Amino acid sequence: MSTDRPQRGAEILRQIHADWGAPNVLGPLEQIAPDLKNMVRDFAFGEIYARPGLDLKSPQLVTVAALAAMHNAPTELKAHLFGALKLGWKKEELVEALMQITLYAGFPASVSALMIAKEVFDEVDKRNAAQK
Amino acid sequence: MSTDRPQRGAEILRQIHADWGAPNVLGPLEQIAPDLKNMVRDFAFGEIYARPGLDLKSPQLVTVAALAAMHNAPTELKAHLFGALKLGWKKEELVEALMQITLYAGFPASVSALMIAKEVFDEVDKRNAAQK
Amino acid sequence: MSTDRPQRGAEILRQIHADWGAPNVLGPLEQIAPDLKNMVRDFAFGEIYARPGLDLKSPQLVTVAALAAMHNAPTELKAHLFGALKLGWKKEELVEALMQITLYAGFPASVSALMIAKEVFDEVDKRNAAQK
Amino acid sequence: MSTDRPQRGAEILRQIHADWGAPNVLGPLEQIAPDLKNMVRDFAFGEIYARPGLDLKSPQLVTVAALAAMHNAPTELKAHLFGALKLGWKKEELVEALMQITLYAGFPASVSALMIAKEVFDEVDKRNAAQK
Amino acid sequence: MSTDRPQRGAEILRQIHADWGAPNVLGPLEQIAPDLKNMVRDFAFGEIYARPGLDLKSPQLVTVAALAAMHNAPTELKAHLFGALKLGWKKEELVEALMQITLYAGFPASVSALMIAKEVFDEVDKRNAAQK
Amino acid sequence: MSTDRPQRGAEILRQIHADWGAPNVLGPLEQIAPDLKNMVRDFAFGEIYARPGLDLKSPQLVTVAALAAMHNAPTELKAHLFGALKLGWKKEELVEALMQITLYAGFPASVSALMIAKEVFDEVDKRNAAQK
Repeated sequence: MSTDRPQRGAEILRQIHADWGAPNVLGPLEQIAPDLKNMVRDFAFGEIYARPGLDLKSPQLVTVAALAAMHNAPTELKAHLFGALKLGWKKEELVEALMQITLYAGFPASVSALMIAKEVFDEVDKRNAAQK
Repeated sequence: MSTDRPQRGAEILRQIHADWGAPNVLGPLEQIAPDLKNMVRDFAFGEIYARPGLDLKSPQLVTVAALAAMHNAPTELKAHLFGALKLGWKKEELVEALMQITLYAGFPASVSALMIAKEVFDEVDKRNAAQK
Repeated sequence: MSTDRPQRGAEILRQIHADWGAPNVLGPLEQIAPDLKNMVRDFAFGEIYARPGLDLKSPQLVTVAALAAMHNAPTELKAHLFGALKLGWKKEELVEALMQITLYAGFPASVSALMIAKEVFDEVDKRNAAQK
Repeated sequence: MSTDRPQRGAEILRQIHADWGAPNVLGPLEQIAPDLKNMVRDFAFGEIYARPGLDLKSPQLVTVAALAAMHNAPTELKAHLFGALKLGWKKEELVEALMQITLYAGFPASVSALMIAKEVFDEVDKRNAAQK
Repeated sequence: MSTDRPQRGAEILRQIHADWGAPNVLGPLEQIAPDLKNMVRDFAFGEIYARPGLDLKSPQLVTVAALAAMHNAPTELKAHLFGALKLGWKKEELVEALMQITLYAGFPASVSALMIAKEVFDEVDKRNAAQK
Repeated sequence: MSTDRPQRGAEILRQIHADWGAPNVLGPLEQIAPDLKNMVRDFAFGEIYARPGLDLKSPQLVTVAALAAMHNAPTELKAHLFGALKLGWKKEELVEALMQITLYAGFPASVSALMIAKEVFDEVDKRNAAQK
């Protein structure tokens, strides 16, 4: 089973991120550390995300919560908020989740995360409007 | 509606924490900062948790993820892992969520959170065995 | 007393931030999470800042120290450095406080905070010069 | 002036910590890294704390706020809460300052700091009672 | 090559940790999350540590520095300080490295790390004395 | 010996940073907090870096690892990556060290650090090409 980690990882990456305007977090790694880019695909998505314990939707909330609470990875948070919408979380649900971060990481962490969410929602709205 | 914040908060606290052996995180505040204890009840549980956007089960996963990623609040994490079980999350689902933290906060954060989860699961198993 | 939290919060917000050029940290929340904006006013300023234990000047130093040490909320730190000047802290006192952060959070946290303080002081000087 | 850094540092250390039951944070450094112990005395207390910009009382509030917000140095926070009382901060003022940390670093940071403050206040009360 | 990740990881784990008294950080994972234990062996040691770019000695200094600066993983830091001695770093070199952490993460992080180093050095000395 | 701290510090600063295009982290401090700028030279470089325990090359790896793991000081990390190249670390060795940060601080910290490394390597390549 470990032989198809790359395929599984690539498939899950597509399910979470493809065609939704998320920033290409890993693109710039290609030149400097292509192995790390592969590890994100093979380990992060091909092993951790690919585990059967949760569906893909719940882990996406875990990721959003963790990144918002850590308050130091805005690009990853943005990419994963796109992913959360793509996997079926509603905007209002994500807003509530990010407001909740206030309790554990303070208001600035929550405010920063909501600013990023606003960018994501605006980009999605713009694209949806353009497609009509 | 703001007049019943304390009741709402107390009710939600009961739903998440009562009768499940969670550590009494706030008890020791009674003597030194009773107002902060009230703020946790009224603001954290009576305002934030009481919001209608998500059910109680999803926010509990947000809390567990945030606390595990921050990696500096073991008592609160323990209390909220009890709460997560009480609200219906399965042990295996929580283990998967905590393993996922590795990707964003590193292995030590994930390992620490899983050690705490083990304590919680063992206490719950023991209590369940005693009740038979 | 809890019924006038919004008024109290708004009043304290004015005392700390009004008419001093501080960045409008919360403005962009209006569209995405107006309730969080209200919580900052009602809880942060209407409950916590409004408490009688300290005057407004000392808590402002607590805020500046906390934000500088956490080293991840530059916009909030900027806003509260404007507030600190408005409430009567002298530039030299703030510089000393931010240098002290070196001891607990390291040189980079202190250097970052002082860069932000420089921006604040320059803006205040410019405005004062323009008013003459 | 730099030649008397050790004396100045030792004198300030005495003013903040002597005879008040604070934990001896630096004692165990003696054997493994005596030079770091000297640097705390000479740099932290002999240079930073010895600066003329603020009296000793205000910087002590900066230290307490920074340590509480960082939420990972309980022994140092305990020592500096003893120091804060010794330099004239009232218990109620310190409780208010630590409650305020909630806004920037979340409830768990604030709760932890207040637990430590309770230990400090209890030890001071006990000693005062014994001296009567 | 990916088929022998477990063997490579186990071999490197032995080189860094075996027979030196390091705490068994991962043992307790066996029951609750055996897959994470395997990931540490296969990914952390079998992929990352096994890379040819640096010898094992330099990465061990990277690990010690990272863990000391993060200041929230004392058990892992202890284990890796044992490993650092085993791989040939001298006590004095490690003390210098940990003192340097002061500059980037503040004195408390450095002091905590040195306390842990003292425990490690004492245990190694005791064992060496017993073997004579 | 303590009288020549400024000279020693200035000399070490030159060895690590001079003429390699590193960002001038401390320049802007000149106006607002010249004493902190001096402390970096005298304490950070004149005392800590000047210690005889390690050569300059190993501590530079400690600094890079600490800054990458802390994930909140990109300017300092950039400056010290220039310094690391100048002191003889190879690009591939630094890439490996930064990939290793993933294990302790998560993928986002490692990815951010590698992006900064890419900027540094590109600037060095450009300058080297221009000199031919």
